[in-house]
Amino acid sequence: MSTPILYYAPSNASLAPHMVLAEIGAPYTLKLVDRDSDEHKSAAYLELNPAGLIPVFVDDDLVLTESAAICLYLADKHPAANLIPALATAERAQLYKWLMYLTNTLQAELITYFYPHRLGGESAKTIVQDNAETRVGAMLDLIEDHLAKNSEGIWLLGKRYSIADPYLLMLCRWTRGFAKPARARANLARFLAAMMARPAIAHTFAHEGLLSPPY
Amino acid sequence: MSTPILYYAPSNASLAPHMVLAEIGAPYTLKLVDRDSDEHKSAAYLELNPAGLIPVFVDDDLVLTESAAICLYLADKHPAANLIPALATAERAQLYKWLMYLTNTLQAELITYFYPHRLGGESAKTIVQDNAETRVGAMLDLIEDHLAKNSEGIWLLGKRYSIADPYLLMLCRWTRGFAKPARARANLARFLAAMMARPAIAHTFAHEGLLSPPY
Repeated sequence: MSTPILYYAPSNASLAPHMVLAEIGAPYTLKLVDRDSDEHKSAAYLELNPAGLIPVFVDDDLVLTESAAICLYLADKHPAANLIPALATAERAQLYKWLMYLTNTLQAELITYFYPHRLGGESAKTIVQDNAETRVGAMLDLIEDHLAKNSEGIWLLGKRYSIADPYLLMLCRWTRGFAKPARARANLARFLAAMMARPAIAHTFAHEGLLSPPY
Repeated sequence: MSTPILYYAPSNASLAPHMVLAEIGAPYTLKLVDRDSDEHKSAAYLELNPAGLIPVFVDDDLVLTESAAICLYLADKHPAANLIPALATAERAQLYKWLMYLTNTLQAELITYFYPHRLGGESAKTIVQDNAETRVGAMLDLIEDHLAKNSEGIWLLGKRYSIADPYLLMLCRWTRGFAKPARARANLARFLAAMMARPAIAHTFAHEGLLSPPY
């Protein structure tokens, strides 16, 4: 058993599994992928992930991609960290629901926002980006409404902190340059402040150099 | 314990959990959501799912949305059906990876293809749709390459059939009108034929009226 390795770049989709590793507290190694030199498109990196995307997580023979999948795997592997509800419970189902929504709806739309030419080309990239920003806003409003109804706690699953929370923090951070960022909503602002008050989260953000501003 | 209910519409995102329910074989009730009368935007349906999306799955007090989350929950709840690898294994991690890729990348892009005005408006919807079709093609090529390397079996996890396979079938079906649909690739064609040879899958497609053509 060697120490698992997370290939990361600051504020990339590696941020959520990095936070989850910090919450768990077991040993891990970070390897910085140098985006400035396109290291994630190098032959050595493409060997790990043919899609050339960050992160990759290596745990002995396991080479794993997809940020949400890495979070799920880590939470399952370290049950003592209590970052995911027990199997086959309604609470576990809700964890799956929120994580799916975050990755297939909010994250997917944010990727369109940051890479609008992929769908719009040169001629329509501004239209695509503007529409993506509007649509992300509506998704954040939906999450804000959910948190507002959440009288029992401040996390996505109410009183229970889970891997969905660092995932949400990562995506909220990505909106910090929006006309109306996530932090402009009262319940999301409360959530974000509570996240940063967690030592493992503050440590992760400090390590990646993300504290000015964190979100 | 009442019989669980899946709210569905033919060939919608309810198709994957419908197949999973059929594979499991435990009792379930189907409720058709009449899209022609916009039933999924009715007050009664919005009570179940404020986003107005199909499917919704109701299991006693649990009201669950997100197709991939419903598949995960069902597979966890019925371990005897053997549709998901054991917790904290490398195989489970790969199941998570494929399911995340299918829902946050391929499915998200297919939704853009079918609703291009959401990002492009009237003026750029054709550009957006064309780019989405090209991008879906590249994603299908990546899956084709994975299946081609898969000397041990025909499923996404090799010899082991899992919930990722009905999920992939559903998304492949959605490309049947493309210039180059999923079935135009040799290994995907083999996968699709193997899926339809499974009695539970053929039954589901027949029930939803999807056999001409299935994909």
